Amino acid sequence: MFDHTPLALAQALIRCPSVTPEEGGALSFLADRLARAGFSVERLVFSEADTPDIQNLYARIGTAGPVLVLAGHTDVVPPGEGATWTHGPFSGAVADGFLYGRGAVDMKGGIACMLAATLAFLDRRGPDFGGSIAFLVTGDEEGPAVNGTVKLLDWAKGRGERFDHCLLGEPTNPETLGEMIKIGRRGSLTGRITVHGRQGHVAYPHRAENPIPGLLRLASALIADPLDGGTAHFDASNLEFTTIDVGNPATNVIPASAKAVFNVRFNDDWTAETLGAEIRRRLEAAAGNAVRFSLDLQPSNAPAFLTQPDAFVDLVADAIEAETGRRPALSTTGGTSDARFIKDACPVIEFGLVGRTMHETDERVALADLERLTAIYGRVLDAYFPS
Amino acid sequence: MFDHTPLALAQALIRCPSVTPEEGGALSFLADRLARAGFSVERLVFSEADTPDIQNLYARIGTAGPVLVLAGHTDVVPPGEGATWTHGPFSGAVADGFLYGRGAVDMKGGIACMLAATLAFLDRRGPDFGGSIAFLVTGDEEGPAVNGTVKLLDWAKGRGERFDHCLLGEPTNPETLGEMIKIGRRGSLTGRITVHGRQGHVAYPHRAENPIPGLLRLASALIADPLDGGTAHFDASNLEFTTIDVGNPATNVIPASAKAVFNVRFNDDWTAETLGAEIRRRLEAAAGNAVRFSLDLQPSNAPAFLTQPDAFVDLVADAIEAETGRRPALSTTGGTSDARFIKDACPVIEFGLVGRTMHETDERVALADLERLTAIYGRVLDAYFPS
Repeated sequence: MFDHTPLALAQALIRCPSVTPEEGGALSFLADRLARAGFSVERLVFSEADTPDIQNLYARIGTAGPVLVLAGHTDVVPPGEGATWTHGPFSGAVADGFLYGRGAVDMKGGIACMLAATLAFLDRRGPDFGGSIAFLVTGDEEGPAVNGTVKLLDWAKGRGERFDHCLLGEPTNPETLGEMIKIGRRGSLTGRITVHGRQGHVAYPHRAENPIPGLLRLASALIADPLDGGTAHFDASNLEFTTIDVGNPATNVIPASAKAVFNVRFNDDWTAETLGAEIRRRLEAAAGNAVRFSLDLQPSNAPAFLTQPDAFVDLVADAIEAETGRRPALSTTGGTSDARFIKDACPVIEFGLVGRTMHETDERVALADLERLTAIYGRVLDAYFPS
Repeated sequence: MFDHTPLALAQALIRCPSVTPEEGGALSFLADRLARAGFSVERLVFSEADTPDIQNLYARIGTAGPVLVLAGHTDVVPPGEGATWTHGPFSGAVADGFLYGRGAVDMKGGIACMLAATLAFLDRRGPDFGGSIAFLVTGDEEGPAVNGTVKLLDWAKGRGERFDHCLLGEPTNPETLGEMIKIGRRGSLTGRITVHGRQGHVAYPHRAENPIPGLLRLASALIADPLDGGTAHFDASNLEFTTIDVGNPATNVIPASAKAVFNVRFNDDWTAETLGAEIRRRLEAAAGNAVRFSLDLQPSNAPAFLTQPDAFVDLVADAIEAETGRRPALSTTGGTSDARFIKDACPVIEFGLVGRTMHETDERVALADLERLTAIYGRVLDAYFPS
């Protein structure tokens, strides 16, 4: 028979080398176990020009409402070039109470806990549990996120699927299981400032126009004052310059232009449009008539969003508190996730493992956390589908 | 017979494709004409690790003092990739009263005038003119300047050559022949500022340390106040940032470090050492305890120097005024030249053609300027060696 402990399931998934965009066998494993448990399983391959084809999975058991979606991804970031892992990144080795491997917490471990909890729930309650459970699993979360959850949701909508709530199993806890639920995410906006000058010889600066002082002025002005002071559920918006590049190798030449790229993680005080307008306003004020510049804002597919705390949030928080003794904080910190797409289909919150080692060498999860997260997900299912 | 007009000599030199480090036949042509006129000619090839071998020429006529050195270079900068010249850059074409070609003004034209004036002077006065004339010509002025004038002067010193004055034929006139003598040059100092931070994800800025705001602060501080107000014979020193490079392609990553390169053209208020110390002082004041940075100053072989106006300067200025009706300004503006090396051997001043088209497409010289500069050099020789 099959081993349905979260450890065995997580090991099986970690041993699939599913670095984005490779499926690596991870979705096939998941499909097999879900099908055996009575789910109807769909495998979807999505394509788009200039991006790799990506495999995705949608599985559902039950036809009645309410429909609870368990969401996640099986793709992982690379193990890192030249990184030296204590145990192979795809070995699924267990040592000192930890399971090692790429994806251990982000988020094959979380998927394994969802699967273990669901299989146990179905064992306890049978197929007529008074609703539906859907698995929405992509292989394109760590990549460009073009052929993943967005298209999977479109596809599901097209075939008439309607969802009531979604629990996304991303690693949400900074240090200890139970600390934090994510009830929203900040938005992300990336832009590039180009200051235009005129090339010339450094010995004749009056015949040239150095763009670098102008860029210093504009960039300094952009970070001089905070964008806001934070909102009820969000930290203050934050702008970081990620690069400045002129690329002039000649130390006797004044360059023709200078570029800086910034990224803003913004709260629900802003949309990408209002934020872009504020950035342009600040730059124009700093430039006056003295600096010629252009601002290119990348199209943003990451708005700020918030799932208002409600009964579903309470239900999940209660399950966490019952298992861990901690009442989780309701947070909107951190990076973006596929929740930004799911929020258009139904209320979505995120709770998973401890993210401390995600994307790092020796990514690992405490075996005890796998057990506890499975128990928490089990409590969520029991409470969501009361018998 | 040979055509000793400056036009014919300049055309012959331009037709030698002597882009640094290639000799291209230019020094051979010069050697031939000087030897025929009675000069003893030495051809020197200098070498150094990591630089190309370079040909140079030293020629002298006369054994008595005083010794007047006529100095210059036959190497030229490349014609420019994809540049469209009205006439081929090595064609020596004449059109509309101009001679076209790479080096027309910088400075095959100047060399041609020196040679034409000298040959005519020797025709007039014969070999016993009461002194010596030396030609000091390098093929490494536009390149790294490692295997050129520096080594040629060392070699000459080693064989007991002593010089009284030097006239360097670089193009010194901004717009019109006769405007400007160079009696010194600003120094040049290049440095690199590296601000050290800590890499991380833009969504978690508190776990990272973005070096870019620190670099903005340091770079802005460095250009906030002028370095000085200029001196008796020099403009104010000027600092230009030539590049800033972070090289981070990931818009969701805070980079680990950021670098900026600057170049200072400095006057005789400073040495490279005192200027480097002032730059370090400004950076340290701006950094305080908040910014971790390092400053790398490149060894400078370009000090600021001044040839004090004296009888030799007057003699050259008189010759210019007699031919052009203009009293030339005594200037120290512009880039560096090999005068910075020659000044250690003897007083050196620079006067040549109009530099407006130097290093550009369609570099060209007015035929009238070739005639007039030859006449000026002839007057210098006559005044320097009175009969």
